[in-house]
Amino acid sequence: MSKEKLEQYRQRFRSELDSVVDFWLKHSHDKQYGGFFTCVGKDGKVYDELKYVWLQGRQVWMYCRLYRTMERFRRPEILEAAKAGGAFLQRFALVPSSGSPGKCAFCLTRDGRAVKVQRTIFSECFYVMAMDELSRVTGDPDMQSDAEKMMDQLVHWVRVDPSGLGRPPMPGDPPVNSMAVPMMLLCLVNQLSEGRPAVAQKYAEMADWCVKQILQHIQRDGTAILESVSPDGKELPGCQGRLQNPGHALEAGWFLLEYAQERGDVQLQKTAVDKFMEVPFLSGWDKEFGGLFYFLDVDGHCPTQLEWNMKLWWPHCEALIAYLMAYTHSKEPALLERFTQLHDYTFTHFADPEHGEWFGYLNQQGNVTLDFKGGPFKGFFHVPRCLYMCERLLDGLLDKHQG
Amino acid sequence: MSKEKLEQYRQRFRSELDSVVDFWLKHSHDKQYGGFFTCVGKDGKVYDELKYVWLQGRQVWMYCRLYRTMERFRRPEILEAAKAGGAFLQRFALVPSSGSPGKCAFCLTRDGRAVKVQRTIFSECFYVMAMDELSRVTGDPDMQSDAEKMMDQLVHWVRVDPSGLGRPPMPGDPPVNSMAVPMMLLCLVNQLSEGRPAVAQKYAEMADWCVKQILQHIQRDGTAILESVSPDGKELPGCQGRLQNPGHALEAGWFLLEYAQERGDVQLQKTAVDKFMEVPFLSGWDKEFGGLFYFLDVDGHCPTQLEWNMKLWWPHCEALIAYLMAYTHSKEPALLERFTQLHDYTFTHFADPEHGEWFGYLNQQGNVTLDFKGGPFKGFFHVPRCLYMCERLLDGLLDKHQG
Repeated sequence: MSKEKLEQYRQRFRSELDSVVDFWLKHSHDKQYGGFFTCVGKDGKVYDELKYVWLQGRQVWMYCRLYRTMERFRRPEILEAAKAGGAFLQRFALVPSSGSPGKCAFCLTRDGRAVKVQRTIFSECFYVMAMDELSRVTGDPDMQSDAEKMMDQLVHWVRVDPSGLGRPPMPGDPPVNSMAVPMMLLCLVNQLSEGRPAVAQKYAEMADWCVKQILQHIQRDGTAILESVSPDGKELPGCQGRLQNPGHALEAGWFLLEYAQERGDVQLQKTAVDKFMEVPFLSGWDKEFGGLFYFLDVDGHCPTQLEWNMKLWWPHCEALIAYLMAYTHSKEPALLERFTQLHDYTFTHFADPEHGEWFGYLNQQGNVTLDFKGGPFKGFFHVPRCLYMCERLLDGLLDKHQG
Repeated sequence: MSKEKLEQYRQRFRSELDSVVDFWLKHSHDKQYGGFFTCVGKDGKVYDELKYVWLQGRQVWMYCRLYRTMERFRRPEILEAAKAGGAFLQRFALVPSSGSPGKCAFCLTRDGRAVKVQRTIFSECFYVMAMDELSRVTGDPDMQSDAEKMMDQLVHWVRVDPSGLGRPPMPGDPPVNSMAVPMMLLCLVNQLSEGRPAVAQKYAEMADWCVKQILQHIQRDGTAILESVSPDGKELPGCQGRLQNPGHALEAGWFLLEYAQERGDVQLQKTAVDKFMEVPFLSGWDKEFGGLFYFLDVDGHCPTQLEWNMKLWWPHCEALIAYLMAYTHSKEPALLERFTQLHDYTFTHFADPEHGEWFGYLNQQGNVTLDFKGGPFKGFFHVPRCLYMCERLLDGLLDKHQG
């Protein structure tokens, strides 16, 4: 591919990132109570005032990452918004008397009262991401310490004793190695370790454990990535065992590739691309209408998730990052072809030139069926992270560097 | 409409009911461990061995009701299957040490180990339905007492103290009057009271309370039925407050109409039809592709449920019962026209002449997108209950009675 084509991509990701940042700066800030509105309609209008904690944490993280690493986003309004979001989280996200540091709520009212607490680790994961990245732009050691304390609690819940999560053990529901858990923890280890050798050292064994847990999801002689396996890496019975989530596998793919590149682990690099990108891409791509399915059953049964055949924005975001990173690494033209295929589908179907930001939910045929830009699970995260990562990867490919 | 047309309907519902009963008799019985497989594919093949408790209870109820009230189903294999299902429930559904009588699991392994417990009342509701109806065919007073004890616990959870459900109260999540709760409890009062004046007397005030709670869902000057309202009948903020579930409203409609007819309450009969049938039918019917939407937002925002625009089998089943019951009551031709419209859509889109039983999940355009006949929420219940109720209503319209 010509340099000109790569430069065109770079310009497109760059201008789209500007537009997406503007959208959220304009529509999502709650100047009265702090924090961010996350339920915003296609034109940015707030249609529900609930504040989803995953999305509060992710927005703080994304603002800080942009502020810290891209010169054109080093703007006071972005820093102030991130700090206000962080303060909202620190003040309201933690559920009182749920231990130390305790559980985070999943959802808060506009003024910060807890609505719901999930019995999983993910609100806490995004709290860690937010606090760590915020500590890097503010230099506040308390925030860094907050992040690390929560991380240590996460490790305790996952590897030692899950009882603090509040889900009583059930005799018919033995422990499961669920892809989301080691993926998320590996992401957090990377986050906490950047430029901090002592922290990297502290979590080195944890990172190895995460990688091993992720690799256990390669099943069926390497022909499938399954979303849930037993803790010793065996296939589970029934629908749960046969479930594939191509977008999740592709996201794990670029997490693994990044980890492997840093360590110069050639075998793991190859596994990341061959198994966590090619396998889910080839099984997950809809040959009839294009786009990646949300869920599939490895034996071809119909998944029981009603939304299985929908095309969601985030798997396409993760796939774009995965293939561009893989191409940057090996310069294998076939990988750039995949990126091009994904790019064309994604920008044609998800982007909204009229109001900015992306639609999140299409039916199998590729038509928008939920038209909001933000909802309980869609906020300022997958779209800007994809645009940001791809812009940086394209900068690298074109030898352009920015502070 | 001519008697011939009504007779054609009667024949169709009757033969479809026979076919649906045969499907589940053939494919769902677990002769090794007892209970019923509920995850069965389009051809009846089991694709997951998990046993969902709602569906175990519902299948026991439906078998017993057919056995008890329709002569052609008074067959030993149906009674034996119901008794085996009831024994499985009594042995495995109750979660040990969750109080007395305690919580029921939501899902069990094939051999009866609890997989998941919901923090709601519905597994227990279907346990009550199963045990009460089973007691009526077996004459077993212990089963009747089991049902009543569980009912009393449900009433306690709903009206006195919900803490036994295991969901800690959250400051941002005040109590809600959720349509499902009074609907379900009214259904149970009807179930327990039939032919038992002392029991009817015991729960008479409870039934009145349920009706009042259901009527609180009439909102916006009578132009909308909202799924969730405050305990004093006010609209709630945000998406939760604006949510409409047309199928649920229609189901509540025939529960109310049945209740009102028994009491000769003319005003309530009118409300049941005008508010709980016409309002949700007119707002819920898809004028472009036909069929009832699953969820809608009363202000026209996009619901956040990914499946909002899908066409599910059960709202259509409930709507068929509702309109045929309403027509039987008033003989108003417009109501029979609605029934005809629903009938034509339903039998064209959901029924499967090839393998029997009905598909459950269509996209907005009316194409099958999940092709199984049974799944975590679809079992031997809505389809046969609809066919059974409609056959009996048509029997009544045509002056045919059976023992």
